[in-house]
Amino acid sequence: MDARFDVVGIGNAIVDVLAHADDAFLARHSMTKGTMALIDAETADRLYGDMAPAIECSGGSAANTIAGLASLGGRGAFIGKVKNDELGKVFHHDIEAIGVHFPTTPATDGIATARCLINVTPDAERTMSTFLGACAELGPDDVDEDVVRASKVIYLEGYLWDREEAKAAFVRAAELAHDAGREVSLSLSDAFCVDRHRHSFLELVENHVDILFANEDEILSLYQVDSFDEALQHVRGHCKIAALTRSAKGSVVIHGDDVHIVDAEKNIKVIDTTGAGDAYAAGFLFGYTNGHADDLAHCARLGGIAAAEIISHFGARPETPLNEVVQQKLG
Amino acid sequence: MDARFDVVGIGNAIVDVLAHADDAFLARHSMTKGTMALIDAETADRLYGDMAPAIECSGGSAANTIAGLASLGGRGAFIGKVKNDELGKVFHHDIEAIGVHFPTTPATDGIATARCLINVTPDAERTMSTFLGACAELGPDDVDEDVVRASKVIYLEGYLWDREEAKAAFVRAAELAHDAGREVSLSLSDAFCVDRHRHSFLELVENHVDILFANEDEILSLYQVDSFDEALQHVRGHCKIAALTRSAKGSVVIHGDDVHIVDAEKNIKVIDTTGAGDAYAAGFLFGYTNGHADDLAHCARLGGIAAAEIISHFGARPETPLNEVVQQKLG
Repeated sequence: MDARFDVVGIGNAIVDVLAHADDAFLARHSMTKGTMALIDAETADRLYGDMAPAIECSGGSAANTIAGLASLGGRGAFIGKVKNDELGKVFHHDIEAIGVHFPTTPATDGIATARCLINVTPDAERTMSTFLGACAELGPDDVDEDVVRASKVIYLEGYLWDREEAKAAFVRAAELAHDAGREVSLSLSDAFCVDRHRHSFLELVENHVDILFANEDEILSLYQVDSFDEALQHVRGHCKIAALTRSAKGSVVIHGDDVHIVDAEKNIKVIDTTGAGDAYAAGFLFGYTNGHADDLAHCARLGGIAAAEIISHFGARPETPLNEVVQQKLG
Repeated sequence: MDARFDVVGIGNAIVDVLAHADDAFLARHSMTKGTMALIDAETADRLYGDMAPAIECSGGSAANTIAGLASLGGRGAFIGKVKNDELGKVFHHDIEAIGVHFPTTPATDGIATARCLINVTPDAERTMSTFLGACAELGPDDVDEDVVRASKVIYLEGYLWDREEAKAAFVRAAELAHDAGREVSLSLSDAFCVDRHRHSFLELVENHVDILFANEDEILSLYQVDSFDEALQHVRGHCKIAALTRSAKGSVVIHGDDVHIVDAEKNIKVIDTTGAGDAYAAGFLFGYTNGHADDLAHCARLGGIAAAEIISHFGARPETPLNEVVQQKLG
């Protein structure tokens, strides 16, 4: 079936504000390292006021994945809500400039464009505090039916589950995609997010998801088990493909009875892990939708290469075009 | 004489928008590589629309210098005008977060905070297009007399010369400083800027400036000569100290009959030259105002170390605290 897009992502449209911090900063603000917490506008102002000098760059989990896909040469679309303010224009510019189709109409009034305050500790781990802002306006009507039907795969971020309207958009998009004979992929996003919505996620994975992305913490949380091996046994058979990332240990892809274990890229100086999982999904889905659906180890390798580029610098979008990075690595 | 601040900078308060570009992009937009051009709001929108995905970070020439001084452990203040909009808040946050005193009241209405669209080519050279925005509101009334009198050195960027009101602020600050027995330093900023205001700058250097910062292009433009040696002969005796930067060739400091030639730092992978000159001035003035005024070669070395950190990554503000970088280099 012809498709205008390889992947359409649906997610929160966010501008990241990245700064260095030490462990004492995290403790002072009662943050759990490596996780994402939702904050209100007042908390965001207070937290920002205490942060070090920062840089701003476009982010958002699914948006990062689609930007990565486009950087690899894939055809991507993104659905997500910004306000028509300065940061909203930044988000809009960046995603279109990388070649992604972005049909969602920005809000003209109401709450500001979402910001994610990201504190990166000396161990390169990122801890995120998100003010969802205009993302609260995303609803089922924003799901562009033509774009969803015209995409080989739709990609949904678990973070959307934190709001009822966004969840409704999410389910509507999944139904549209399946009706059109497309595949549905989901990222579990965050172990705490999984904890908040475990029952829903289990039902989703069982009934709606073809390709599941999760890191080790998230898959352990989903099945409430203590070991990765146990989690593998649980996920097997409950979705078509599960691509599970393990940081420096690489990734494991489960597909029916097949298990592919793929090493992480070597000799990477890790500066900032923000967006690592998003970039992995970008590489994987680029391979999957561009002729390598029968070679999932290759898809996982592409995921690892994309993730390695992202973690080698500050910020979650590629600094070097990912198609060039892949070309260098794989020739 | 006791001083509350080592250096107060007066300059344009700008947020940088940095993206990669190729030489064809510069040609398409009739840009001269390595220079700064002033653009209006409409041109800024059009140019931004054609730029690659970008990152935003605080900039502004003198503001970068004062931020660098603070990062070295110096006591800095900055005078410059933002609007109270999203980018204005970004500028405000970043300069205060690095420890700089920033007394200027933001504009509450009128034109938006200034942006500098910076296109970085594969040779790491930056080409800047500046929409001055709210900087147009800076005038003599914004020069905080107490802060100027309480600073050992005031530092002025030549870019201010492009607007009459800012020029008046500049002259007022220089007079206040001299009346209080302080020293006045000036950066020539840009060869084209020098070309626009050569006569004024010559008069300034002759009558008002104690410490002059310029790169090779700028000092050649100031004296309309073809060789660096000729320029050296011209500047000698016309201001107390001239610190002239020569990119990979390091810098030359002239002080009366003394000439100090200081090598650039070695083995630096140059990613983006934005802010190199600003950082050099930061290091130099930090040394000068912190016990090394009698060792100008040491001041120049500090300038080179600060510049080396800035050009090793995207953006004009330090990624690694400069006091740590100096500690590593000099022990």
